[in-house]
Amino acid sequence: MERMDYDMPFLLKYENVAWYDNGKVRILDRRIYPTEVRFVECTDYKEVVQAIADMVTQSAGPYTAVGMGMALAAWQVRGKGSSEQLSFLKQASFELSHARPTTANRYGKITENCYHAAEKALETGANPVEAIRDATIDSLNRRYSTMQLAGDQLEKLIPEGGTILTQCFAETVLGTVTRAAKKNGKSFRVFCAETRPYLQGARLTSSCFAGMGIDTTVVTDNMIAYSMQHEGIDLYTSAADTIARDGHIANKVGSFQIAILAKYFGIPYFVTGVPDSDKMSVDDIVIEMRDPSQVLSFQGVRTTLPEVKAIYPAFDIVPPHLISGVVTDKGVYVPYLLNSYFDNEVRMFY
Amino acid sequence: MERMDYDMPFLLKYENVAWYDNGKVRILDRRIYPTEVRFVECTDYKEVVQAIADMVTQSAGPYTAVGMGMALAAWQVRGKGSSEQLSFLKQASFELSHARPTTANRYGKITENCYHAAEKALETGANPVEAIRDATIDSLNRRYSTMQLAGDQLEKLIPEGGTILTQCFAETVLGTVTRAAKKNGKSFRVFCAETRPYLQGARLTSSCFAGMGIDTTVVTDNMIAYSMQHEGIDLYTSAADTIARDGHIANKVGSFQIAILAKYFGIPYFVTGVPDSDKMSVDDIVIEMRDPSQVLSFQGVRTTLPEVKAIYPAFDIVPPHLISGVVTDKGVYVPYLLNSYFDNEVRMFY
Repeated sequence: MERMDYDMPFLLKYENVAWYDNGKVRILDRRIYPTEVRFVECTDYKEVVQAIADMVTQSAGPYTAVGMGMALAAWQVRGKGSSEQLSFLKQASFELSHARPTTANRYGKITENCYHAAEKALETGANPVEAIRDATIDSLNRRYSTMQLAGDQLEKLIPEGGTILTQCFAETVLGTVTRAAKKNGKSFRVFCAETRPYLQGARLTSSCFAGMGIDTTVVTDNMIAYSMQHEGIDLYTSAADTIARDGHIANKVGSFQIAILAKYFGIPYFVTGVPDSDKMSVDDIVIEMRDPSQVLSFQGVRTTLPEVKAIYPAFDIVPPHLISGVVTDKGVYVPYLLNSYFDNEVRMFY
Repeated sequence: MERMDYDMPFLLKYENVAWYDNGKVRILDRRIYPTEVRFVECTDYKEVVQAIADMVTQSAGPYTAVGMGMALAAWQVRGKGSSEQLSFLKQASFELSHARPTTANRYGKITENCYHAAEKALETGANPVEAIRDATIDSLNRRYSTMQLAGDQLEKLIPEGGTILTQCFAETVLGTVTRAAKKNGKSFRVFCAETRPYLQGARLTSSCFAGMGIDTTVVTDNMIAYSMQHEGIDLYTSAADTIARDGHIANKVGSFQIAILAKYFGIPYFVTGVPDSDKMSVDDIVIEMRDPSQVLSFQGVRTTLPEVKAIYPAFDIVPPHLISGVVTDKGVYVPYLLNSYFDNEVRMFY
């Protein structure tokens, strides 16, 4: 399977996102990048499940990791009878897709594709491990090319010389919007919210934008209103871990409050991504609560007294009245009319 | 000079805030507390200036540190002629009061008091070092007793069993509102915004509240809207580094955006403190811009690539339309009517 040439920064190169080879899945450890470049190696698909749950990789990273985890599962069960292989892969598909609750539906689409690729390979005498890896690369290509269409749309919304503010790590759209701007000779600068406690904005997003030559500034999560007031933010944009059909979206905790601030300052908020056909409304969104110890510490150093508690909701939900538009491969949708995205042909995304 | 018995948590005990003794000023290093308990020792008042600029101590800590720095200056110039001593102290007063720009007016009130105490001591043959230290303790007593009146007012605004949200480290009011609540048998719980990049909320505020037996939860600065939506926040409160007479206040960066979020959710925002008689309006407020490297690192570890930039405004300004009331020793003021605070007798505060 060909990999598309996307001139990606280090963090997003196919082999760094997650890569199966010779009985191992190797995942760039985003918990410590760019302070250190280190890979986690998994020799059992269950270790891939754990790596996703532990956020070794995150954002769109797990979409690739679950596929590569399926390839690893196929390798683990190689040489057994077809039905044993398929039964093992069915179990792996379930476990990999449920590594994190909020995006379980998306992971599941990918692991099911992988399962069907293996099924077909077994029928035709092909190698299921190769078939799954190919299906995973195919899926990654599909997402990048679909998101290029969304990136092209988003680029049109950025004024020449303008400043955009991002939250968390909009992995798939970073390269595409930047490429579109370069193609059109448009310059823009980026403000990245730091995004505690994991620091996606500081560690991942700013690395990618700066790596692509974009003027990049990081602010802590409490400097958003100040930046909107004093730094000429023209547009707020984020990806979403869920885009429900009623126009509610879930994204990294903090997305909601930045949307409120954007409304206060009259700054548009554009969400990028493909709506989730199976999430009818906000009631279908599950917010993952993570281990609060990560809020009480930084790089392993506890910052509070032992009796202090914390909460760690991984995501929050932005209602449609705070969203100016949902930027998809098929155009920019009014959030209240997202259902119409599904009226015509929908390209395969996962 | 008697110290008032305020049963303060460790962080706020008089000798930990900043203490002059025998040619040295000893300041608890708040940059690393509570992970480590370490003191910075200054043997020259210029080191006290630097310690304040470096935020070894902050919030109301410098109010004491500048006074103790004046005592140290008096010790440095001991035994010289009166006019030489006074001229040295005048210079020290200038430098100590200008250690940070936003609160220079407040620091200046204290160092001038100290200067006058030394002047009087020199006239009467008393020891200027002792006189300055006494004046500093007197000033600290004054602030604690005045803020107890404000704390009593704030306590009345907290519903029984309610939840308050704080930003940064409202040093002087923490103990007073908690004491008022204990006296009245009222229970409440506290949410502390972490307050990056210095982590005042996580490291200092939560330590004090938890140390006084209050149910205390820390959230990162991007979890405020989530907390307001899901955790039953009844009231948002902060101190202020400036309270201008037109109702604009300056406080730790982030205070502004939390006020916007509070307005969105219909949660009242009460600022505590004594208005600054010499700040007529927002135009008199100077926002200190600090070294942005602190935004790009945590505990000395750089979290971003070298080409990534940052900004670090230490404070932001909240306009009066986002403030429900300014809680002072003389009652709760409508922010638009703060001038009336000065209509009647004003107690000496600094």
